[in-house]
This record gives sequence, structure tokens and C-alpha cells, in this order.
Amino acid sequence: MFQPPTFTRGSIGSPAEATVITTVLTRGPISRVDIARMTGLSQAAVTKAARPFIDAGYIEELPNRERTAGAGRPASPLAFRADREFFVGIKITSDELIGVVTDLRAQILHSRHRTLGSHVFDHVAAQIVDLVGELLGHDPAYRERTHCMGVALSGDVDRASGTVRYSPFIGWKDVELAAHLTRATGLITTLENDVKALTVAEQWFGEGVDTATFALVTVGAGIGCGLVVGGQVVGGAYGVAGEIGHVPVADGGPPCHCGGRGCVEAIASTEAIVAASRRAAGRENLTMDDAVALARGGHEGVREVFSRAGHAIGLGLAAMVNLVGPERVVVSGEGVANYDLFEEQIRQTFVAQAFAAAAKCPLSIRPLPFEAWARGAAAVAVQTLFTL
Amino acid sequence: MFQPPTFTRGSIGSPAEATVITTVLTRGPISRVDIARMTGLSQAAVTKAARPFIDAGYIEELPNRERTAGAGRPASPLAFRADREFFVGIKITSDELIGVVTDLRAQILHSRHRTLGSHVFDHVAAQIVDLVGELLGHDPAYRERTHCMGVALSGDVDRASGTVRYSPFIGWKDVELAAHLTRATGLITTLENDVKALTVAEQWFGEGVDTATFALVTVGAGIGCGLVVGGQVVGGAYGVAGEIGHVPVADGGPPCHCGGRGCVEAIASTEAIVAASRRAAGRENLTMDDAVALARGGHEGVREVFSRAGHAIGLGLAAMVNLVGPERVVVSGEGVANYDLFEEQIRQTFVAQAFAAAAKCPLSIRPLPFEAWARGAAAVAVQTLFTL
Ligand SMILES: [Zn+2]
Ligand SMILES: [Zn+2]
Repeated sequence: MFQPPTFTRGSIGSPAEATVITTVLTRGPISRVDIARMTGLSQAAVTKAARPFIDAGYIEELPNRERTAGAGRPASPLAFRADREFFVGIKITSDELIGVVTDLRAQILHSRHRTLGSHVFDHVAAQIVDLVGELLGHDPAYRERTHCMGVALSGDVDRASGTVRYSPFIGWKDVELAAHLTRATGLITTLENDVKALTVAEQWFGEGVDTATFALVTVGAGIGCGLVVGGQVVGGAYGVAGEIGHVPVADGGPPCHCGGRGCVEAIASTEAIVAASRRAAGRENLTMDDAVALARGGHEGVREVFSRAGHAIGLGLAAMVNLVGPERVVVSGEGVANYDLFEEQIRQTFVAQAFAAAAKCPLSIRPLPFEAWARGAAAVAVQTLFTL
Repeated sequence: MFQPPTFTRGSIGSPAEATVITTVLTRGPISRVDIARMTGLSQAAVTKAARPFIDAGYIEELPNRERTAGAGRPASPLAFRADREFFVGIKITSDELIGVVTDLRAQILHSRHRTLGSHVFDHVAAQIVDLVGELLGHDPAYRERTHCMGVALSGDVDRASGTVRYSPFIGWKDVELAAHLTRATGLITTLENDVKALTVAEQWFGEGVDTATFALVTVGAGIGCGLVVGGQVVGGAYGVAGEIGHVPVADGGPPCHCGGRGCVEAIASTEAIVAASRRAAGRENLTMDDAVALARGGHEGVREVFSRAGHAIGLGLAAMVNLVGPERVVVSGEGVANYDLFEEQIRQTFVAQAFAAAAKCPLSIRPLPFEAWARGAAAVAVQTLFTL
């Protein structure tokens, strides 16, 4: 059977090509006329850019549903064939790996978890390689049509060189993870900070598709924020940006592990909530689950802890929105089960503190299943493939 | 005498032309080779783009100082003739107009003030027209070679339509100021928010020239911030961005006129400092000058007021830098004379609260003479002329 050529990193030949492909991938099905209108390119340029992707089976022409008014030319919308290629996404957490296989639109097709026995590089790398084998072994089509992988973890990550510059939770410094995994798995590997990876997934395949400027805030063990301004993920001149967890909102408030005081994270991270709940309940070994149960059961002191956390998050959101002016904000978090304890206070504080019309900025508060982090990593691999 | 054609708004024909002209204007003298390297354009494209501006006398070729290594071709740096055209910049404040004439690089050549008797539109507009006449009357060359004017004021300003959407200090709502002034003065008028105008001046002719991402913070009656991210001034999806004055830094702090609490502006604006100093000194009619004198004289309570203001500004700066990650920050303010009372506390708090490597972000703290605001307006006029 004829095997059409497969695109690899570096196949994109020009900015026009990248623009057209990205537009079809994120907004398709879409007609050449509409792509031309949106991108400012001529219809001839759009047709030329799409041609090799049609030939290789990535893009298909859908049957015409309508004809453009007046003109005799049919509209012929273009769409990606989402199963033309698959991607692996891996998220590294402190105690496990989460791996997924996705299609070209970063939809999760298959997922697996794997417990980590230690943070030693050789162990973690071997476990990733093994997990990739297991994921791809699930379906012969995966093994045949997967060429790219994304790996995400928290910390200071240099995507360009594929290096973990510094990741405190796993204790790594200047580790060239991407090159190692590319050699070991045969998949072209892109490394990215986990919050930025989630932001890319949202930018390409989620609420960020139609907005040039938006923010994704993650709440859990840490409190992070990915910012997209003018269509670009904000990186920060010193490797620091989107650190909403370390926005000081309570002058003279509790000390934070960053060395500051009154940071959002010092009040609203899982650790901070557990510590404050232990004090409120007078129970030394209380867990987050216990705290949630006490709050739901009406324990005033512990309810107050969650309320203060929601208030701090709302203040951080207001600071971010007043400064950056996103069109919308997605707030997402690990603690799916306990959102009811925060949400009202987050919204109330945000609206009270957002400046003027910025209070109109919609907040989508929604759960963040662990697989979503791995999906973010896969979205980064998709982005890498189709970016110049 | 031969009058070369003068460029007007709309003369820029292509993105390549805009890029080349902007590069020569902001970084000249610069050789075609260096422009090509910086912009990614071919040398032929650079030469073609510069040609009409050389013919019209805007750009000149300087004598060769060096030859490019190896090649026989001379380097021939290009530079703008700064006095080829002049610009008027006007800043509207509550009690006066400040007007300047600048050259093409927004250098102030002449300035005048004019007291405003009222905020009625007809009065303010007539005073502006009169001030423009006076400014241009100062030198025949100004009248002959000035075609564009920028006008800046605080508030929500729609630059594209030239409308003051809402400016509380002057009480205007939906006022089409730019069109009126264009008709009345014959100068093509661009309207801009005053902090954004200052930011444009810094981006094109100041510390922002070599950075893609930077911030300008203004401290005085209000506390504002202009942000440039990825080379673009951040506008905010709801018309709100850079509102560092309304970043909540002190949970439960003093109420702010925005409706929030503990905002930077509620602690560190001139009004807040005067109010707190009155309480500290027990003097009802104390002015800002009195407060400065008391603090310099060692009055503990009033010194503490300035220290708290500096602390609040430092917290706001840390919030902004942790979120946006600029390469550098310019802090500038009306209260030139009293910077010594703030500066140390601003720097100390910023460094304590900036996250990780973001503490390396340099703060340039410097005075902001009133003419600088009008210069910002002129820079916006220059930008309008040379932008597609
Ligand atoms: Zn912190
Ligand atoms: Zn406020």
C-alpha cells in the first residue's frame, strides 16, 4: 500500500505555510476563502501552502456544503484528518508519570499512569521509555503513526534546548532530558514547563482559540499561570512570568517558600490550606481530604480557611487581570472535588477588585484531571511539528 | 527652491517599509547590512524600502566610516534627518495644557504651558488650537514642516477612532477630540492615553529600544503602568491593562476610589500620602510640600507614611514583574523632588518580593518632568506617521 510521506519537524517551509496549517488545525473545517480573509494571505497562497499537506493525507477537502454567494467557485472547506498522526504526552509529577496518546487535535485516545520509585535521572528516564513503549503498544496504528512526544514538568524549563534548568520538586538542575528521550524512544521530544504546556493546549484547542490574549491559572500544590499576549505565550525576560502564586496580596501575611510574604501560594496552595486547617481543627495529622470533609460538614474554622484561600486567589486574579487585560481566564485545579468550597469566594473577590470594565472578564472555573497535564505535553509536540 | 514631497499618514506602503523606517528611526545610524540582519529582510528589500525616504529627505546616507570585512561594498549607514519634520505634542491635565514641538526623534525643541479656565469642551479645544498656533509661530520652520500632532490625557482613550471614551478628571465621555482638532488646526491628530503615550516614547526613543518586553510605571496623582510585551503595547481586552495602581497589595487595607481595598493607589498616590500625612502630623490643611518638608525634617510619623507608600509601590512592581517578566522597568513620577523619600523602600521591597531570577530585573527610578508627558504625545504622532 502506498504510504504518503510523513511530516517531521522542519517540514514547514515558510511563515505562510505555518499560518495556513495552524489555521486549519485549530479552526477547521474552514474554507480557503475564510483562511485567506483571516490571515491576510491571497487565496492562491493558501492553496499553495495547503497542497503538500493534502498530498500527504494530513488535510482533506470536505464535500461542499454551500457555494460562495455570486461566485461559481465552491467553498470546499479544509479539515485536518485528526488520526493521520498520533502524539505522546508525558507529565512528570513527584510520585508518578502520566502518559497519553492523542490525535492531531490533542484529543486523548489512551492513557496510562506509572508510579515513580525515585527521582534519580536514570530511573525516571527508563520509566518514561517503558511507558512510551506500553502506550504505543496499545494499538499498531499508534506505533506506526507516532513520531513526536511532548514531556512536561514543573520548574524552569528551556524548551529550545530541551533542558530542565531547575526543577525543585524532582531535584534536577541542567538536565538534557529531551535529547536523551529522543535517542531512547525514537520520538522527536519537546520539553516544556507544565503550566506553559497546558496553556498551549488551551491556545490551540481550547478557550484560547479565538482570543489573542488570555490566561490559564492552575490551583493545587502550586499556583501557576500561563499568559498568552498578542498570540504569544509570555516567557519572561528572566525565565519568570505568570507567577501568580507569588503575587503579594496580603501585606504582612504568612511567609512563603519563595522568601516573600503574603503570596497567594502562601495562603491558597494545598500545603497552606492543610497547615491552616490543622491549626483550625487542632488535629496534627489532618490531610486535605480531612479538611474538605470538615469544611463540608460545617466546621467554621476550616470553612474560613477555604474562604481565605478563595479570597487570596481572587485577589491574585484581579491583580493579573488589571495588569494584563486578558479576554478570558480559565481557572483549573487538581482539587476537582473541593471546588465548591472556593468558587464563590474567588468570583466575589475578583469582581470586587477588578478595575472598571475588567470585571467583565469571564472566569471559567473547571476541574483539571491529571491526564490534562499530559495532554498539554502532547499539544506542545503538535505545536512543535507545525511551527516554523 | 525644490520642496521634496512630504510624507503623510498612509504613505507607508508595506510592512517591510514600516519595519525598515522604524529601524532607521529608532536605531540609526545603521547600515543596510545591519538592518537586513536585524529584520530578516534581504538587502535589496531594505534598499528598496529606504529609497523613497532618502528621495524625500527624511533619511540620509552618512559618510562611510568602515568597510564590511572582505566585501568591497561600503557600509553606508542610514540615519534620519531629525529636523526634516516637526511634531506637536499636547498633554491635557486638570489645570493646564503642556505643549511641545519635537523633532522626528521626539526631542523637545520648544515648550509652552497654558492654564485651563474650565473643563468645558469648547474652552479646552479652543485653548489647544491657540496653543498650537503659538508653538508653531515660534519658528517659521515649525509652521512649514509640522503636519502631525499627538494629544494625551489620562482615562479610557480609543486611539483608532480618536475618541475620549471616558476621562474622569476632566469629566468627558465619548468626545471625538482628534477629528475636531484635525479640522481646527490642519494637523493630523492622534489621541492616546497619557501613560501609553509615555510608553511609546520609551519604546521608540528610550530604554525600550532594545527590549521586546518592558514596563513604564508612573507615580503621582495616579499610579499607572504601560506594558510592552513582544514589541507591542498591551491594550487590554476590556480597555484595562497596566493598572498597577489597582493591584491589591494589602488585604483589608484602605478603601480605594475604584471600589476595591488595599490598592497601591490607595496607599501611595499623592492624595493618599497627603491624607495619611495630615493624620500623622495632626494638621488638617497640610499639603504635599508640607509633608515632604516634615519627612525631610525627621518627623517620624510622616516618614513612615512615605515608607509605607514606597513599600506598596515595591509590592505592586513585584506583582507586575512576577506576572509579566519584563526585561527592565522604568519608574517615573511627578514628584521629582521627593524621590529620596521613596526610592530605598521601593527597591528593598521589590527585591524581597520578586520571584527567583526576576529580582535581577533592573529598575530605573527617575524624575518625570511635565514636558515628558507632552513629548510622549509627540512620539505617538511620530509613530502614527510611520506605521502602516
Ligand atoms: Zn511566594
Ligand atoms: Zn483601586
